[in-house]
Amino acid sequence: MADNSILLAHGSGGRLSHELVKSIFLPVFDNQVLNQLDDRAEVEVSGVKLAFTTDSFVVNPLFFAGGDIGKLAVCGTVNDLAMGGAEPLYISAGFIIEEGFSLDSLKSVVASMKKAADEAGVKIVCGDTKVVEKGSADQIFINTSGIGLVPEGVKVSGSLARPGDKVVINGFIGDHGMAVMAERQGLSFKSTIASDCAPLNGLVKTMLGESKNIHVFRDPTRGGVATTLNEIAAQSGVGIVLREEAIPVRDEVLAVCEILGFDPLYVANEGKLLAVIPAETAERVVAAMKNHPYGTDSAIIGEVVADHPGRVVLSTGIGGHRIVDMLVGEQLPRIC
Amino acid sequence: MADNSILLAHGSGGRLSHELVKSIFLPVFDNQVLNQLDDRAEVEVSGVKLAFTTDSFVVNPLFFAGGDIGKLAVCGTVNDLAMGGAEPLYISAGFIIEEGFSLDSLKSVVASMKKAADEAGVKIVCGDTKVVEKGSADQIFINTSGIGLVPEGVKVSGSLARPGDKVVINGFIGDHGMAVMAERQGLSFKSTIASDCAPLNGLVKTMLGESKNIHVFRDPTRGGVATTLNEIAAQSGVGIVLREEAIPVRDEVLAVCEILGFDPLYVANEGKLLAVIPAETAERVVAAMKNHPYGTDSAIIGEVVADHPGRVVLSTGIGGHRIVDMLVGEQLPRIC
Repeated sequence: MADNSILLAHGSGGRLSHELVKSIFLPVFDNQVLNQLDDRAEVEVSGVKLAFTTDSFVVNPLFFAGGDIGKLAVCGTVNDLAMGGAEPLYISAGFIIEEGFSLDSLKSVVASMKKAADEAGVKIVCGDTKVVEKGSADQIFINTSGIGLVPEGVKVSGSLARPGDKVVINGFIGDHGMAVMAERQGLSFKSTIASDCAPLNGLVKTMLGESKNIHVFRDPTRGGVATTLNEIAAQSGVGIVLREEAIPVRDEVLAVCEILGFDPLYVANEGKLLAVIPAETAERVVAAMKNHPYGTDSAIIGEVVADHPGRVVLSTGIGGHRIVDMLVGEQLPRIC
Repeated sequence: MADNSILLAHGSGGRLSHELVKSIFLPVFDNQVLNQLDDRAEVEVSGVKLAFTTDSFVVNPLFFAGGDIGKLAVCGTVNDLAMGGAEPLYISAGFIIEEGFSLDSLKSVVASMKKAADEAGVKIVCGDTKVVEKGSADQIFINTSGIGLVPEGVKVSGSLARPGDKVVINGFIGDHGMAVMAERQGLSFKSTIASDCAPLNGLVKTMLGESKNIHVFRDPTRGGVATTLNEIAAQSGVGIVLREEAIPVRDEVLAVCEILGFDPLYVANEGKLLAVIPAETAERVVAAMKNHPYGTDSAIIGEVVADHPGRVVLSTGIGGHRIVDMLVGEQLPRIC
């Protein structure tokens, strides 16, 4: 039965998710835009270049340190647009609610959505609400889709990484995944770790203001930094070398990961971006990032190489190397 | 508890749905576009007028005579765009799938989506898949959002109905609701009733080709013809008078409605549109509709009046009148 049915790992963002997309969706929906496999579609309407994206949110629990499903739903879609270098403009909100869900919780979620939308400078312009019987859904699921404007002269894609480029991140990894995990388990360390959930369009604008010559933006959500870099390596046909000691991880996150058996490279982030930037401008862009509230801990964590195309390799502090594969299986179901 | 929690009727498309939108969503998300309360948002990007809409689909059962959740998900969003007079262009697909759902069923649903998209001339350009644990969702939910182009010179809205206008429908009412109901109950009459689920953008184009002077388009889905006309009457501040004998209802649908205690005026349609058209061009537009495959049974079913603003009145065959209110409570949960 398992061979012929959906597993939790199909929703992990890792290897099985990719296989599902490639075996079921792409061959049928087959069109040039979808086949790009970027976080959002780039389409042209009457000569205007738009970014278009969709995401459903099923995070459990709904409320956690640093955010809730509403903030996540707005930031996630804003970020998918921003990762195309686009200016996010309009968001839709589709609610699927379980009968009996508290109106007060709904109000909190809606207030979070508004707050995040205001920060990101987007408007929630259309919506839909469906209610299903008790037991037919888990509290509330939210879909957000978004439209953004791709500015002239910006061309970013997961397929544009080139040997010699630097790999940049805007701060500490694994905070979102461990904050949700802590909330779920009622762990006592939870007060020290908060989700990094944030709208990143302002940071992207700062970076593009410093240099339009940025090759790739991508947010390492489900599957974490490891899976996202594997996607970029595969799409661009290049290798990536990460320097372990350069990757920012908080001590608390590292400690919890060790206790629970997680590798922070695979843990979801909701306020982080990976950028692939030509070597000659990378330092300058990172300096600009450090002046932005969501980029104070930015760092160059690796580089793109011509060797081992499609592979990500971690060079460890003690001079060793290990291959960092895409996430296999499911680590943290319903992390977003 | 009931006073402070979500009821099935909040998802009915009727009175409680409207109250939820007006009390929870509008005051918080508050913006001019959303406040229009049309089926889709009309937004401008770099001088190009776009229609943008979202809909989640939770229909139960997933497969029924005349369609399935996949066909419904594409047609529903295509139709919401078309009801703005827009040409539907791009669709997103967000899947929330219950662990254990059959891959074969998923393939069938995806094939239906593609077939409907091809018929409507739209491309499915972006998507997302989430998987939740067994028991946390009911098989599969699909969100589709869509972008369309609003052509020059077209201005339709639920607020533009004017006294003297004719109310037009493109055929028989109640087919979708009764087809799903029959499938759900395993009723023996089910072979004779099929959902009317269809993409209506071609029909809308035909109508606008005949006359751009059409005031309102709206598809009477959840809550049926009665609820949709109440929305138009309220938005436009006009009265509407329906002639009962002019409303096309199949004998089989009427019979089943009578047995089960439904009023066909409140039963969901998925391939019907209501149009409000100036009297001088209504006959001509209806003649054009009758030449379209989805309009062969089109009819003028009523007119807009200055009397009783906000109210819909049905004039019955025997000379009587009754007020037709918005749907109260929930008739058929998860009809779309």
